[in-house]
Amino acid sequence: MTEPTINEIREARSRIGQHVHRTPVLTCRTLDRVCDAEVFFKCENFQKVGAFKTRGATNAVFSLGEDEVKRGVATHSSGNHAAAVALAARRRGVPAYIVMPETVPRVKVDAVRGYGAEIVFCEPTLKAREKGLAGVVNRTGAMFIHPYNDYRVIAGQGTAALEFCEEVSDLDVVMAPVGGGGLLSGTAIAVAAVSPGTRVIAAEPEGADDAYRSFRSGVLVPSRDPRTIADGLLTSLGDLTFPIIKRLVNDIVTVGDEEIVAAMRMIWERMKIIVEPSAAVPLAALQTRRGVVKERRIGIILTGGNVDLGNLPWNS
Amino acid sequence: MTEPTINEIREARSRIGQHVHRTPVLTCRTLDRVCDAEVFFKCENFQKVGAFKTRGATNAVFSLGEDEVKRGVATHSSGNHAAAVALAARRRGVPAYIVMPETVPRVKVDAVRGYGAEIVFCEPTLKAREKGLAGVVNRTGAMFIHPYNDYRVIAGQGTAALEFCEEVSDLDVVMAPVGGGGLLSGTAIAVAAVSPGTRVIAAEPEGADDAYRSFRSGVLVPSRDPRTIADGLLTSLGDLTFPIIKRLVNDIVTVGDEEIVAAMRMIWERMKIIVEPSAAVPLAALQTRRGVVKERRIGIILTGGNVDLGNLPWNS
Repeated sequence: MTEPTINEIREARSRIGQHVHRTPVLTCRTLDRVCDAEVFFKCENFQKVGAFKTRGATNAVFSLGEDEVKRGVATHSSGNHAAAVALAARRRGVPAYIVMPETVPRVKVDAVRGYGAEIVFCEPTLKAREKGLAGVVNRTGAMFIHPYNDYRVIAGQGTAALEFCEEVSDLDVVMAPVGGGGLLSGTAIAVAAVSPGTRVIAAEPEGADDAYRSFRSGVLVPSRDPRTIADGLLTSLGDLTFPIIKRLVNDIVTVGDEEIVAAMRMIWERMKIIVEPSAAVPLAALQTRRGVVKERRIGIILTGGNVDLGNLPWNS
Repeated sequence: MTEPTINEIREARSRIGQHVHRTPVLTCRTLDRVCDAEVFFKCENFQKVGAFKTRGATNAVFSLGEDEVKRGVATHSSGNHAAAVALAARRRGVPAYIVMPETVPRVKVDAVRGYGAEIVFCEPTLKAREKGLAGVVNRTGAMFIHPYNDYRVIAGQGTAALEFCEEVSDLDVVMAPVGGGGLLSGTAIAVAAVSPGTRVIAAEPEGADDAYRSFRSGVLVPSRDPRTIADGLLTSLGDLTFPIIKRLVNDIVTVGDEEIVAAMRMIWERMKIIVEPSAAVPLAALQTRRGVVKERRIGIILTGGNVDLGNLPWNS
């Protein structure tokens, strides 16, 4: 399999079309004023399972042949990818096995269980996840669907930016958060192809800045002990996502957790929509004009809306 | 001035069109499953100032003649009507004076201040509000814009249901919460005219059930010491709203605060949108099928989304 192009992203859109929402693009005059820009929000928090991850997982699960998929699919994930794989498997009619850290918010565990997946809990480390996953795959023969380091997943995630650029023309910049880089690399491929004048800027929490450091140094630097409120962005770039990001992304900037929480709260208060901390990272960067200096028409992908409502960051 | 008809509601729409949003109608398959119905949500939480109140206040302020309005407008309100009057006054270019109980959530006070209104705080009783208002009107000569017992306000609130019925055909029922009855009476007039086969059902908190008792007895019964989490519904019906409600509303049902909070949380978790407790009252009734037994196509007006995010009902 080779690096996806806009063709694979278009194919992904056809493949997943009946299984995912075409999410709305919202605007908010107050936020425009605060950011001194025209800001367009692609609302993947309204996507099925509450996050863009449904796009990539659905594309991956439905790309598999009958023989490959019949014993099910498996993954490890801090939450949204897990729910996305579980839903895609249910729609394909095959079992899903999900390895999850014990520390995941209850709402995410409930969502995955609700889609009928079998959950295997593990310690909240990458090593424990990988060991748990290997055990599941050996036991069941399920196909592993990686959360981001998978070309089919990358192509699926790129469908959000494809829709975004088709709906809103002449964006100066598209901003997305970066964790493992699946969304960012798919976004960069889509934007470069359908809106070549648009820059792609990624935003990352300071406490999990492996993508920032990798991008600046040109060498893949894994996360070491990442800490951030943006729990969807703890993962490190992969060897499939990093080359795409290095080639096609214009800049990666970092923001602090306080700025992330403030941006998240502003979206809740002013737009009356629920986004998770990871989704607020680009707005936090835009508010301080990091990576985006003079640009006026800004597209932000709001990546997800799954939060534990009993444990909000401004109540702790 | 006589009771508004659909003509006054259509005029209101023309008058306020450039000042308010045509709000979207959202659906959610999970909530359809939970309610065993097709449920359509008219999202007035996305309205300017975060509530339907903008419609009525804007219609009232822009209905006034130049001479009537030049010394400004005044009102007493627990929050959303206050912000709505403040915004309408700013757009008309006249001062606004708002009498507010000291107990109002900070986020609502900030919103009203943000629109440039002068705030006069009072004790959280109707008597104190009315006294405060009389003082302001005497001092300034401002015109009083009543929160609901005003035909221009009623006509303005009716524009939400007019849009709703135009966008979603063949609704079996339209549901709205009831406090003072401005929204409910405007809704009932609009629905009776443009979708006569559609029933109108109001939902009210058990702890503030004056509309329920008035509707059942046929005699206007004021609230006595109302207590409910739905702080937008503490007011009593007025002598202008009650006759319309008595004639055109099909039923009024009540729900408990626990049911309201559960319905509110379900909207937040499943739809990823922010609504205030008052807005969740109809869904709480629908979930227990109170007033709505066999009907399938249900329209619910989500009245507002202004909550104090630092003080959510499930964290207390």
